[in-house]
Amino acid sequence: MRQFRVGVIGYGYWGPNLVRNFNDDPRAEVAYVCDPQVAMLEKHRTRYRTVKFTDNLDELLLDKELDAVAIATPVDTHYPLAKAALLAGKHVFIEKPLCRTSAQCEDLIRIAGENNLTLMVDHTFIYHGPLRLIKKLIEQADLGDILFFNSVRVNLGNFQRDVNVLWDLGAHDLAIMDYLLGQSPLEVFAIGSSHTDSRLADIAYLTMKFEHDLIGHINVSWLSPVKVRQIVIGGTKRMVVFDDNSQVEKVRIYDKGIETMNQPTTAPQIYSSRIQYRHGDMIAPVYDVTEALRTAVRHFIDCALSGDLPLTDGHSGLRVVKMLEQADQSLASGKVLPVGAESGYV
Amino acid sequence: MRQFRVGVIGYGYWGPNLVRNFNDDPRAEVAYVCDPQVAMLEKHRTRYRTVKFTDNLDELLLDKELDAVAIATPVDTHYPLAKAALLAGKHVFIEKPLCRTSAQCEDLIRIAGENNLTLMVDHTFIYHGPLRLIKKLIEQADLGDILFFNSVRVNLGNFQRDVNVLWDLGAHDLAIMDYLLGQSPLEVFAIGSSHTDSRLADIAYLTMKFEHDLIGHINVSWLSPVKVRQIVIGGTKRMVVFDDNSQVEKVRIYDKGIETMNQPTTAPQIYSSRIQYRHGDMIAPVYDVTEALRTAVRHFIDCALSGDLPLTDGHSGLRVVKMLEQADQSLASGKVLPVGAESGYV
Amino acid sequence: MRQFRVGVIGYGYWGPNLVRNFNDDPRAEVAYVCDPQVAMLEKHRTRYRTVKFTDNLDELLLDKELDAVAIATPVDTHYPLAKAALLAGKHVFIEKPLCRTSAQCEDLIRIAGENNLTLMVDHTFIYHGPLRLIKKLIEQADLGDILFFNSVRVNLGNFQRDVNVLWDLGAHDLAIMDYLLGQSPLEVFAIGSSHTDSRLADIAYLTMKFEHDLIGHINVSWLSPVKVRQIVIGGTKRMVVFDDNSQVEKVRIYDKGIETMNQPTTAPQIYSSRIQYRHGDMIAPVYDVTEALRTAVRHFIDCALSGDLPLTDGHSGLRVVKMLEQADQSLASGKVLPVGAESGYV
Amino acid sequence: MRQFRVGVIGYGYWGPNLVRNFNDDPRAEVAYVCDPQVAMLEKHRTRYRTVKFTDNLDELLLDKELDAVAIATPVDTHYPLAKAALLAGKHVFIEKPLCRTSAQCEDLIRIAGENNLTLMVDHTFIYHGPLRLIKKLIEQADLGDILFFNSVRVNLGNFQRDVNVLWDLGAHDLAIMDYLLGQSPLEVFAIGSSHTDSRLADIAYLTMKFEHDLIGHINVSWLSPVKVRQIVIGGTKRMVVFDDNSQVEKVRIYDKGIETMNQPTTAPQIYSSRIQYRHGDMIAPVYDVTEALRTAVRHFIDCALSGDLPLTDGHSGLRVVKMLEQADQSLASGKVLPVGAESGYV
Repeated sequence: MRQFRVGVIGYGYWGPNLVRNFNDDPRAEVAYVCDPQVAMLEKHRTRYRTVKFTDNLDELLLDKELDAVAIATPVDTHYPLAKAALLAGKHVFIEKPLCRTSAQCEDLIRIAGENNLTLMVDHTFIYHGPLRLIKKLIEQADLGDILFFNSVRVNLGNFQRDVNVLWDLGAHDLAIMDYLLGQSPLEVFAIGSSHTDSRLADIAYLTMKFEHDLIGHINVSWLSPVKVRQIVIGGTKRMVVFDDNSQVEKVRIYDKGIETMNQPTTAPQIYSSRIQYRHGDMIAPVYDVTEALRTAVRHFIDCALSGDLPLTDGHSGLRVVKMLEQADQSLASGKVLPVGAESGYV
Repeated sequence: MRQFRVGVIGYGYWGPNLVRNFNDDPRAEVAYVCDPQVAMLEKHRTRYRTVKFTDNLDELLLDKELDAVAIATPVDTHYPLAKAALLAGKHVFIEKPLCRTSAQCEDLIRIAGENNLTLMVDHTFIYHGPLRLIKKLIEQADLGDILFFNSVRVNLGNFQRDVNVLWDLGAHDLAIMDYLLGQSPLEVFAIGSSHTDSRLADIAYLTMKFEHDLIGHINVSWLSPVKVRQIVIGGTKRMVVFDDNSQVEKVRIYDKGIETMNQPTTAPQIYSSRIQYRHGDMIAPVYDVTEALRTAVRHFIDCALSGDLPLTDGHSGLRVVKMLEQADQSLASGKVLPVGAESGYV
Repeated sequence: MRQFRVGVIGYGYWGPNLVRNFNDDPRAEVAYVCDPQVAMLEKHRTRYRTVKFTDNLDELLLDKELDAVAIATPVDTHYPLAKAALLAGKHVFIEKPLCRTSAQCEDLIRIAGENNLTLMVDHTFIYHGPLRLIKKLIEQADLGDILFFNSVRVNLGNFQRDVNVLWDLGAHDLAIMDYLLGQSPLEVFAIGSSHTDSRLADIAYLTMKFEHDLIGHINVSWLSPVKVRQIVIGGTKRMVVFDDNSQVEKVRIYDKGIETMNQPTTAPQIYSSRIQYRHGDMIAPVYDVTEALRTAVRHFIDCALSGDLPLTDGHSGLRVVKMLEQADQSLASGKVLPVGAESGYV
Repeated sequence: MRQFRVGVIGYGYWGPNLVRNFNDDPRAEVAYVCDPQVAMLEKHRTRYRTVKFTDNLDELLLDKELDAVAIATPVDTHYPLAKAALLAGKHVFIEKPLCRTSAQCEDLIRIAGENNLTLMVDHTFIYHGPLRLIKKLIEQADLGDILFFNSVRVNLGNFQRDVNVLWDLGAHDLAIMDYLLGQSPLEVFAIGSSHTDSRLADIAYLTMKFEHDLIGHINVSWLSPVKVRQIVIGGTKRMVVFDDNSQVEKVRIYDKGIETMNQPTTAPQIYSSRIQYRHGDMIAPVYDVTEALRTAVRHFIDCALSGDLPLTDGHSGLRVVKMLEQADQSLASGKVLPVGAESGYV
């Protein structure tokens, strides 16, 4: 079988990871790296000597033997680049967030559909062993009903010049939340602050309300002295902590929770309470330690070859962009905003 | 000199700590413990055999030799108990939050003032060595301009039956924030969720905006599988992490931050940025390890004897209660609310 | 029933803990605290106002109503004090190590036996919830065959003036090892170093060999910048880490280990290996969080009242002292020394 | 200038890292990878398409344009391979430990010297930013006189089939200790245990005594459920902890220690002590985060081109092998052994 040939567009922070992972898949080879910055490319030619480095996008689009492109460029360029690639008949693997607007997302979904091409957004964490394990726990009802989802993703840098911290870091958390909870929020409220001339929020807090008192919270920041990558999910039966900063035992399952006593109480009980606490064992389970991007790339190639819909397809990208749009509006208006049923899971 | 005689009212969770600390101060002695729950008191008689245990408050108020009372009862009883004690001529040391309403706080402030009595609210953390050190850093401008204040205070339990989690755990953070920043917020927004019949929020997120893009955030929860007690404060010159869960090195000072490059840029720079990051040393300084409550109790006795105003006087208690009132209104209305100038620092 | 009356001898570092715990047991009361240092006692009279403070030991020994003494004095005084108390008909609770020599231990065991009195050495950790849980795991064969026992107990201070660091910190580890393994080592080797005029080792490494390749190692130090309290026990089926410095999850059970492949290999395999590794889940189980000394004190009173032999009786104290004696000889001679069968479990 | 051409011999665990790092140095290129295992090489051809993969060593030795070889094979093959390479006129970069015997090391040193070739042993940690910073602290006398060196390097796996755990993991610690202390031990004692058919120690404790009561201890194990990489160095002025498992702040400098009071004491002081403890700030300094192997490879190329002696030359390798030889003898004999003056620093 001939190799699945890929062109990587954008060779900044993430591009080299795409090249490495596509190159490592035995079915694929990276045929091109396309980037306007020639200087940065030169120093990498040594490692991948057969990859063609170019600043001419047309070279890729006109190559009939090129099967797919992987796009790792600034967000504003996602839509035109992906559209051109799809129209040239290439499968598209694209960094998160999918596009700058939900209308653009919908357009890409339509074009990909009409041309039977795979459109996959790189919500990398969905392919991360620890999170897949947590998804399984939720599906098996091991956590019970979900009470809250709380994510903290903060560090010092990297300030983006085109999007605020929600579109940069928060997109990860929204994708993870969307994947794990399998439902869209009813209401969104975002508040943040900017400390540079760009006036783009570098600290933001995003709160979402779902049905049945489920509350979601995402704290993102480019201005934290310590790096935190932690998600806590509480259920009626168990609670889970995902700490991606930990080198081992990234998932911890706590047999902890509360039980409400229902029997009527007659006398006033000032110091006692009807709530009882369950403090059981903690388990740090084994999980798949494969690099998430490796799994994502493999899944993309699988889908491109089989025609199956990827787990993180255009609709997954669209749901995240819709939440980001509402978050931006809330940030600007200081108001709690509804997220319409049309934006998410029906 | 005769002993400073104190009566402790309320012997639930915190009361025993008050007894122990007043008893340990060489100038003071605990003359009474007053609580309606006789059974709970019995088992403690062994330890403090000379303390008189009683369920009759009048016994304390009518004892002319009793100098002060320390109140550690449910919030709703703070105002009537403190008022009665002040009117009986006793100095009053009272657990946080000071009262249930700001009007009650103002009344206590007035009565204490008119009778030249000390009214001190037990914002214990203000007397905690690590936080006093951080206050000093801020006063000496070691952190530069403050950019953000972020506090997380979460654990499993203890659900209160009379107040929500903001009045319980959040009161600590508001007192600390008020102390460290020395200014009141312009706007408050609170959002939360309840998972019990009480409908009192057990998870809450409180965001506050101050002048000059300073943003404050407080995350409190009774429903977290892990206990977190962490405050991060970012300044233009340095950033500080206070981790009260750590047994040692509770304060970490990071020589980290961003510098904005001001020179004009002409060409579009896609992968570079005008922001530069400073990654310097981290210092974990030595601090006073005295138990905070011990220092608070000593300060209360100092003030009662000298007539000086305590650091956490009625106005400090009032400012915290005003923020809690606004937070409750925001929780109920889903709106961002202003905190009037009259409520805080003038 | 009348109270079990106890006199605490020695009121330095540990004495106050004994007073508090005996006082907290509903069956007991502390009748005396005996210590030659009058100044240090004065400041504590406030708290325990009915305890009689004295520097006259005879007062205790001649009090016919006194049931027991608890001895928390320097090691060299253990034997004469305990002997006098036993001969005066008192049960004896005594700090570790039991005595300065094994001959002294044997003498106390004999006298206690002849007088039907309880002699219990305060190997406190044996009464610590986490370690009792580990003992149970071992007894249930959950760990399989034990391969190694490795303990690190280091911190800055407190230099003792009468014994080296093995007799001070190492005695804890030897008592724990003796309890958990239930066997005595065949050989002992100790090496250490002193950095003060006392020439008493302040850093020491103690290695012990048992039957079947089981190896034990204890690292103790008064000269470490960080405090470590960690024991790792490896078995063929599971491995356990006990971290007493951790505030929660002090016990971690790892489903980890090696499996040796037994099939014959013909060809040389340079990069492969016949050893396979098992990396399973980690479990941090719930354990009893009662203060260890509280449990120890309760057990002592139980035994004194019932006549039962305590878990940490004189023989337990003797086994630890014999290992310490051999360790001292090894330290001095630089030689690996046998521990005779007579010294331990028969 | 033409490229510095390197052949990598051995492509097991470490070889790929050598290829990557030599390839990344702009002055060098990897011309060959030589390994008898053809199957393992195939899967890597994709990444480095211009490297020639071969199982024929002569191809490298006879290539007049090949400047150097890097050897990452089992220890027993180091000597014959390095000797052949040196005699063929190639500079040699070789994994630790340098050889199986000190006689072999001396022979390689002689041959390299006679042929003006660079012989460098890959004591990688000597090129690690955190350790270079600690070396600087010691050289500047910031730690004062060194009191102890304590290293723990334990994990589960990887059992070697040709050498025991001291030759595998311990070689790193001996190289680090040799580098930091700049002196050879006077005495060595090793004790260990084996739990497989190989009878090669998989757990070992190595203690070394130096002049002036300086004590060194190395604990290595292939049988630990948790991975530890920690070195603690205590000096009279400061103490340092190097934790290589930590993702950030790998170096922590503690302003801690003891001061001995010299004034004569007349009365016996049972509870006080002449030792005072200094508990100052802790500083986690910034260090060079370059990958250590990258720096090592750069240094090797520098030395090969300039003729300078590398920091980790043959003598450095020899000192480590001599300590390993003595450790093996001590393991076998159960005796404390001297390390002769001839073996180390003169």
